Amino acid sequence: MPFGDVIDASGDPTVMINNGHCERYTDRAKLDFAQGGRAGISVFYAQPYALPHRLSYVERHPLGSQAFLPLSGAPFLVTVAHDISGVPDTPRAFLTHPEQGVNIHRGVWHGVLTPLNRAAQFAVVDWIGDRENLEEHHFQQAWLVYPQE
Amino acid sequence: MPFGDVIDASGDPTVMINNGHCERYTDRAKLDFAQGGRAGISVFYAQPYALPHRLSYVERHPLGSQAFLPLSGAPFLVTVAHDISGVPDTPRAFLTHPEQGVNIHRGVWHGVLTPLNRAAQFAVVDWIGDRENLEEHHFQQAWLVYPQE
Repeated sequence: MPFGDVIDASGDPTVMINNGHCERYTDRAKLDFAQGGRAGISVFYAQPYALPHRLSYVERHPLGSQAFLPLSGAPFLVTVAHDISGVPDTPRAFLTHPEQGVNIHRGVWHGVLTPLNRAAQFAVVDWIGDRENLEEHHFQQAWLVYPQE
Repeated sequence: MPFGDVIDASGDPTVMINNGHCERYTDRAKLDFAQGGRAGISVFYAQPYALPHRLSYVERHPLGSQAFLPLSGAPFLVTVAHDISGVPDTPRAFLTHPEQGVNIHRGVWHGVLTPLNRAAQFAVVDWIGDRENLEEHHFQQAWLVYPQE
């Protein structure tokens, strides 16, 4: 997708490893980190949200991509928006499949981590460094994200 | 642990984010990648093993650390060994907790990805590059890993 990458085992495996016991799908995310920092793995433990979801603001990280890998495997809500002259356009919402991760590309507007119904842990691969890496945009009027009919 | 890092939300959060909705445990793994390559996120889909587990060989990756993040959250078996002059010492076995990942340090002998009882998907953060990054050591006699009593 133009906003980032879906991280899953779709398509053909890149290679079989471990004597045929394991399919490897190599390099599923475009990692992109500014100099002066480095890639790191963190854990996020997020409280749940419910649908309809009130999306009152989005954020973006100018210094790096950010991958969310669900350690519970549960689907979660992903909201993203194109940038128009420094301001997010109308956001779009996606629901992930079970055991699927996403990688938000560097600088892409997105809603905060949004597990549904249950609190959830995620491994997160993002930029670690000392510089400020967060911009927020608060909508004048919040968007509501409804379940797909 | 001396072999790598446990990746989980233990201890105090590093910081609260997202208006208090999310605990962030920052930088839980020592990523270590040789030049000439880069960090990448891949997906592994591994067939299951059963206990007692027959550990006939271990491997190591001289060019980078390798993190295993279970997308099903299920515990998995981790086997590691110290190196003694290029040969693995007696291996040790660990069972992860649910929703816990591990990061095997660069160059540490370890058994291949070992989910138990059910096939499982993992996100894997390791070194991506063109050089050979695999050494294997086959034991003269396989080790057997039994369930903990």
